[in-house]
Amino acid sequence: MGNFKGHALPGSLFLMMGLWWAGKFSYWYATRRKKSVGHLTSRVAQCRLEVIEGAAILFFSLIGILAEQFVADGPWLHLYNYTEHQWDRLMNWQHATMYLFFGLAGGVSLTVHATGSAPLALDRMLLGVAFFNEGFLFLYHLHGRAMLDVHVHQLLLYAIFGGALTTFLEVFHRGNVLLELLRASLCLLQGSWFWQIGFVLYPPNEMAEWDPKDHNNMMFITMCYCWHFAFSMLTVTVVYCTVCWVVRSRLKRTPLMEIGLLKATESEDEI
Amino acid sequence: MGNFKGHALPGSLFLMMGLWWAGKFSYWYATRRKKSVGHLTSRVAQCRLEVIEGAAILFFSLIGILAEQFVADGPWLHLYNYTEHQWDRLMNWQHATMYLFFGLAGGVSLTVHATGSAPLALDRMLLGVAFFNEGFLFLYHLHGRAMLDVHVHQLLLYAIFGGALTTFLEVFHRGNVLLELLRASLCLLQGSWFWQIGFVLYPPNEMAEWDPKDHNNMMFITMCYCWHFAFSMLTVTVVYCTVCWVVRSRLKRTPLMEIGLLKATESEDEI
Amino acid sequence: MGNFKGHALPGSLFLMMGLWWAGKFSYWYATRRKKSVGHLTSRVAQCRLEVIEGAAILFFSLIGILAEQFVADGPWLHLYNYTEHQWDRLMNWQHATMYLFFGLAGGVSLTVHATGSAPLALDRMLLGVAFFNEGFLFLYHLHGRAMLDVHVHQLLLYAIFGGALTTFLEVFHRGNVLLELLRASLCLLQGSWFWQIGFVLYPPNEMAEWDPKDHNNMMFITMCYCWHFAFSMLTVTVVYCTVCWVVRSRLKRTPLMEIGLLKATESEDEI
Amino acid sequence: MGNFKGHALPGSLFLMMGLWWAGKFSYWYATRRKKSVGHLTSRVAQCRLEVIEGAAILFFSLIGILAEQFVADGPWLHLYNYTEHQWDRLMNWQHATMYLFFGLAGGVSLTVHATGSAPLALDRMLLGVAFFNEGFLFLYHLHGRAMLDVHVHQLLLYAIFGGALTTFLEVFHRGNVLLELLRASLCLLQGSWFWQIGFVLYPPNEMAEWDPKDHNNMMFITMCYCWHFAFSMLTVTVVYCTVCWVVRSRLKRTPLMEIGLLKATESEDEI
Repeated sequence: MGNFKGHALPGSLFLMMGLWWAGKFSYWYATRRKKSVGHLTSRVAQCRLEVIEGAAILFFSLIGILAEQFVADGPWLHLYNYTEHQWDRLMNWQHATMYLFFGLAGGVSLTVHATGSAPLALDRMLLGVAFFNEGFLFLYHLHGRAMLDVHVHQLLLYAIFGGALTTFLEVFHRGNVLLELLRASLCLLQGSWFWQIGFVLYPPNEMAEWDPKDHNNMMFITMCYCWHFAFSMLTVTVVYCTVCWVVRSRLKRTPLMEIGLLKATESEDEI
Repeated sequence: MGNFKGHALPGSLFLMMGLWWAGKFSYWYATRRKKSVGHLTSRVAQCRLEVIEGAAILFFSLIGILAEQFVADGPWLHLYNYTEHQWDRLMNWQHATMYLFFGLAGGVSLTVHATGSAPLALDRMLLGVAFFNEGFLFLYHLHGRAMLDVHVHQLLLYAIFGGALTTFLEVFHRGNVLLELLRASLCLLQGSWFWQIGFVLYPPNEMAEWDPKDHNNMMFITMCYCWHFAFSMLTVTVVYCTVCWVVRSRLKRTPLMEIGLLKATESEDEI
Repeated sequence: MGNFKGHALPGSLFLMMGLWWAGKFSYWYATRRKKSVGHLTSRVAQCRLEVIEGAAILFFSLIGILAEQFVADGPWLHLYNYTEHQWDRLMNWQHATMYLFFGLAGGVSLTVHATGSAPLALDRMLLGVAFFNEGFLFLYHLHGRAMLDVHVHQLLLYAIFGGALTTFLEVFHRGNVLLELLRASLCLLQGSWFWQIGFVLYPPNEMAEWDPKDHNNMMFITMCYCWHFAFSMLTVTVVYCTVCWVVRSRLKRTPLMEIGLLKATESEDEI
Repeated sequence: MGNFKGHALPGSLFLMMGLWWAGKFSYWYATRRKKSVGHLTSRVAQCRLEVIEGAAILFFSLIGILAEQFVADGPWLHLYNYTEHQWDRLMNWQHATMYLFFGLAGGVSLTVHATGSAPLALDRMLLGVAFFNEGFLFLYHLHGRAMLDVHVHQLLLYAIFGGALTTFLEVFHRGNVLLELLRASLCLLQGSWFWQIGFVLYPPNEMAEWDPKDHNNMMFITMCYCWHFAFSMLTVTVVYCTVCWVVRSRLKRTPLMEIGLLKATESEDEI
């Protein structure tokens, strides 16, 4: 998938995932603080949301695997090309492997929250493993490319391994809103950086080519990465503020008496 | 031991150890959740199991050390060859050193659980040291070999140091089932990867040789490593589900009255 | 800003910041221990102080950005020089990016403490991100310079990444006075090292030039860095002792009766 | 100090320090478990012991600094040789800097335990800084030496940075006997490895020279390092068992009635 679309597609997926997480975790945090609106997110609703999220990740991962395997120039499940005595389309296989681990994470999250027969933190651990695995494959992916190409992918590794580390920390500090929002913004960063890589390495027709050996380009790209991170943090902030504002305005409209009743009936769900 | 058998042997040992841990920790977790089947694993039984495990590790390590020393072409405890003025069969000595540290870990675990005169977490710390020591010796083991040879052993280091880190974390988070199962799956990964190394570097007669300088081989091997990890996680999941199912079905057969009695008599063992 | 002043300016800012933190955290620790002087730092006053600090950081960062952009030979917001077909004054842009992240941290700290609508630890996380970002840009800043130049900047990275790590740890261990004072001394180290870099790379007229390839210079500089750290720790110690002495002497002058009243009225502020 | 004695001296100091720590922490752990012998280590006695330890470290560090400065071929406090236009005896200055940080750690530990006017964990933090500083100076100490020389010093770094990490962890997990004993064994490892370096690089007359470029020597030395670690752990174990046995046998001789009285009078000291 060494082309523009091959970077725009995962970029869009990660952008969606980051936005979704920013919204979800902001909402939970906001409702946890204002306990009186507990009926908006009882524990049952939270659990159902997690199941849906797991199913969605599983679904998109399966789509991704199938797409990598059965596109026009895909390997169609052949691993070895016996006529040319070499491995067949390793890139597609590698991308399919990345999707496979995200699929595992989605499937496990689905199972954990639907059946409750496994420790809760397992969903975070497998998500961390999926991020780590993505970074691990990228790490050994870059041998023998041009300097600029290697550099933009190396920068991507910061976002990926940062996300993996954050998710592993959540295994021990579950429910820490800072870690959750940091994960969301690192995910957004990854998504927007995939788009940037696409524009740098495969510029659309009307744009000028980038000189892959110019040292100034390397320095600009590094700085550009910081701007992407600042922008992704800004996006998470905007989402957080919007969600807080919506939750607070809803709270005001809820009649006081009803809140009193809610407190009595749902107090066991909110902790 | 630069041959196929020299990699298959430790591989089999680590596979057995990984399966054993997956089963043991799943069982303990399952019985901890269903407290009414506490009589299956009272604290005394747990302690006895740990003693047996420690003894087994100690026994296999001693066998390993003796085998490395007294095989036909072993060093027979001679460290320096005075006729040729060089060290004698350093490889065998290095492998014996690795076994030595696992033997120490086994012996200490045996002592800690049998006598109770040392802090409990000592067994995890020495196991972590044994894993770290194994990785440390591998790290300085690879100088001057072919690219593919170095690469497959480097990949092994991820599993080894990952296992060491997980075990050290257990010193502070003892009884966290996620860390225990992660350790089991990293141990399985190590075992299956030893087999893979054997097949890659010393292919049995009917298989084709691997070109040690082909970059495509490197990329395939990296991906293959991920598949091994996915497979080892799958194995741990299967073991976990089986154990949970067995524990639950036994629970149903236990008459309710007996449970009541058990609760009264063994409540002090289960915490 | 490859000149003496370009290193002396940030150096002075970091020195001021380090001294301020050393004083602030020493004072809070001293008053927390002697609860009876709680009226010196009620929680409201603490909060106001944090708001002022955030505002000051934001203000200096804005000044920094404006200075980097609109000095005589600055880029004046032009990023690309179309006549020469290359990026325009990337150094200034990079420094502006560093200031931008400190500005973000200051702004967020201001908002968190003024409105209380976000988790408290957010101020530490963004400060940690700002330090990390500074180190990250320096890391890719050094390509193709002389050995001594690279070395003195690499040493700087220890202080920067050490500060980032300490600040991230404070997210989980907020209020640990050791981490806070360590951060202050690493910040002082950074400030004094900036001055040292200025003296080494751009010696004022009367001083001799440094030979950038002499290995002895490298070894001396490394040792010199340790002395800077010892000196910065000493400074923090002096500040700490002074503050403690002042707090204790004020305590003695407060009449006993008044303390009794304070205890009754302000006990809810001190925890 | 590039000679045999220059490595044997610090080696002996670290060996003594490691043995002392192994004994001290074993004793505290043993008496904490058998609360009835609390009178052997009341809190006051512990504090006095820490003060003495701090004073001893400070004393030996001062001796070390003076020895490095004022030996026959020392720098006598001259830093720059104006006749030859180069730095004067940087090695001695570097070693003096290492002693300086240990002296700081000793002095601070002395102050903290004698006056109690600073947070208790400060002694561990400064000891960790001293270890880190030692490793940091060694890291930049090795440029341009022979392969074997670099390798034996690199191995030393594992013990030094391992000790620094362990000591930093104690800031957060104070009183964890495993960390304390691990620190003791890493300190012993450091001491015995200094002796080994002396024997390898400056063999006494009757021993053969080591070929600094033979790869087999490198592999042997790496393995030898592991044996040193196994040996140092064994030493700590022996010390621990001896101390436990002594404490238990003393306990038996204490008349029961006296214990009853002790429990009543000293219960506030033992926690």
